[in-house]
Amino acid sequence: MRNVTKDNITDVFTAYLGDDTDPRVREVLGALARHIHDFAREVNLTHEEWQVGIEFLTRAGEITTPERQEFVLLSDVMGLSSLVDMLHSKPEATSSSVLGPFHVSNPPPLAIGGDMKRDFEGEVLLVEGVVRDSDGAPIPHAEIDIWQTAPNGLYSSQDEEQDIHSFHGLMTTDENGRYAFTTVRPVSYTVPSDGPVGDILNAAGRHPWRPSHLHYIVSAEGYRNLVTEVFPDDDPYLDQDTVFGVRDDLVMTYVPQAAGTFPEGFEISGSVDDAYSKVSFDLILAKG
Amino acid sequence: MRNVTKDNITDVFTAYLGDDTDPRVREVLGALARHIHDFAREVNLTHEEWQVGIEFLTRAGEITTPERQEFVLLSDVMGLSSLVDMLHSKPEATSSSVLGPFHVSNPPPLAIGGDMKRDFEGEVLLVEGVVRDSDGAPIPHAEIDIWQTAPNGLYSSQDEEQDIHSFHGLMTTDENGRYAFTTVRPVSYTVPSDGPVGDILNAAGRHPWRPSHLHYIVSAEGYRNLVTEVFPDDDPYLDQDTVFGVRDDLVMTYVPQAAGTFPEGFEISGSVDDAYSKVSFDLILAKG
Repeated sequence: MRNVTKDNITDVFTAYLGDDTDPRVREVLGALARHIHDFAREVNLTHEEWQVGIEFLTRAGEITTPERQEFVLLSDVMGLSSLVDMLHSKPEATSSSVLGPFHVSNPPPLAIGGDMKRDFEGEVLLVEGVVRDSDGAPIPHAEIDIWQTAPNGLYSSQDEEQDIHSFHGLMTTDENGRYAFTTVRPVSYTVPSDGPVGDILNAAGRHPWRPSHLHYIVSAEGYRNLVTEVFPDDDPYLDQDTVFGVRDDLVMTYVPQAAGTFPEGFEISGSVDDAYSKVSFDLILAKG
Repeated sequence: MRNVTKDNITDVFTAYLGDDTDPRVREVLGALARHIHDFAREVNLTHEEWQVGIEFLTRAGEITTPERQEFVLLSDVMGLSSLVDMLHSKPEATSSSVLGPFHVSNPPPLAIGGDMKRDFEGEVLLVEGVVRDSDGAPIPHAEIDIWQTAPNGLYSSQDEEQDIHSFHGLMTTDENGRYAFTTVRPVSYTVPSDGPVGDILNAAGRHPWRPSHLHYIVSAEGYRNLVTEVFPDDDPYLDQDTVFGVRDDLVMTYVPQAAGTFPEGFEISGSVDDAYSKVSFDLILAKG
């Protein structure tokens, strides 16, 4: 192996792996090296381009904090995060979609029909649905961790003006698997684009926008956890989500409702006399 | 493109690229995304493994400083740095080999036959050779930037005990293209293995050793710069360099010389009466 060449280096890499290496480590590292080598050979990567890559990673490291994860964002805009989701999504369940970096721990409990809108302004949206198994049977006592942007396009963890738990809630479905809550319509927003990942988007002629969505983590005993998002069918970024999160079965219609029809069973902190919208979205879990 | 799937995501990525995107950016980013996606699909990358990758990059970012470049080290041990070298090495010239992170700016001038050993202990080594073009003609006034480890296995930039310019020198070849200097035999050493890249080496059952070498950057007007290394043919790590730097034409014999034969034309700070070794290594530059 002394004479390493551009044609044998992948074999040399594999030969270096220890005999007692964990088989999965061998598989993943071997494939990673082969794809890195194939990439470099295929594009005939130059020293200058390599240097750009090193500087990119260095800058991403510098900007990353517990609140700002540039490597996750890189994975998101390269489509890797969504691909990993899709590889492990169950066909009999609701599609999974990116977790993203904005989920916070210990969300406050939210009763069925509870008000997540609180004192925020914005178009009122009623959300309801049933958590079901893949045969259609309701799952009682399932837990739904819900979060979304405030009307200003920011998640609570990005916005010092917001309480850390604003637009976060933890709901448990009733005996019929039903969940329901009052909120304001989430808005389209941009991923952080003032760092090195933003520079990639710029160089690629891409925008940093995501279509608006409600974000859920659904869990129930005996079922696989589901991380997913619900998108409205009229969002202008639906067909160009910069993190590749949209799946057909996650797109729903927000149905406009006339003023004065605000239903029983939903709390609201503001007026019940205005027009609002309503979306119904069932969540199907795979057995775990 | 709304319904992104694991099978179409690479096409979606390509479709997102702007119409005015620089063709080379399009080529490199497109190939990078395709290989990342193929890698993830091929090994069926799990969320847990993805998380390990994100944590690895985050830790690499945290440990990286101007003196400690963990991303370069990652590229080195994955074979990418060497592959980029080899892709742009000219067959008519001496093979190039990894620059590594230990070169320092503004090396002190070193006269032909000068002493780079200074007051360090160790086996005395005389190094000489001729810088030539690919037709064999000597290149006068070529510049050779030389650096190596101290006998303790550390480069000056790693070792507070050393002057930053110890074992660094900048030489200009004479009218006959000749260079020559006195040093101590460099030693095998380990790349930094106390960080996340060290964890990869451990998991892969690999060691962090590099065979000993002299490091050169050779430049001359009208020729391509050459970054290379010279290895002795009896180094125990010659066939398993952890950064894949060894090429057949860079391996030379350090020829033992009897005590009392120290030649004219070489300076030395210590005794001229002991045994020593000598290596001859011509450096061939491609026209630039």
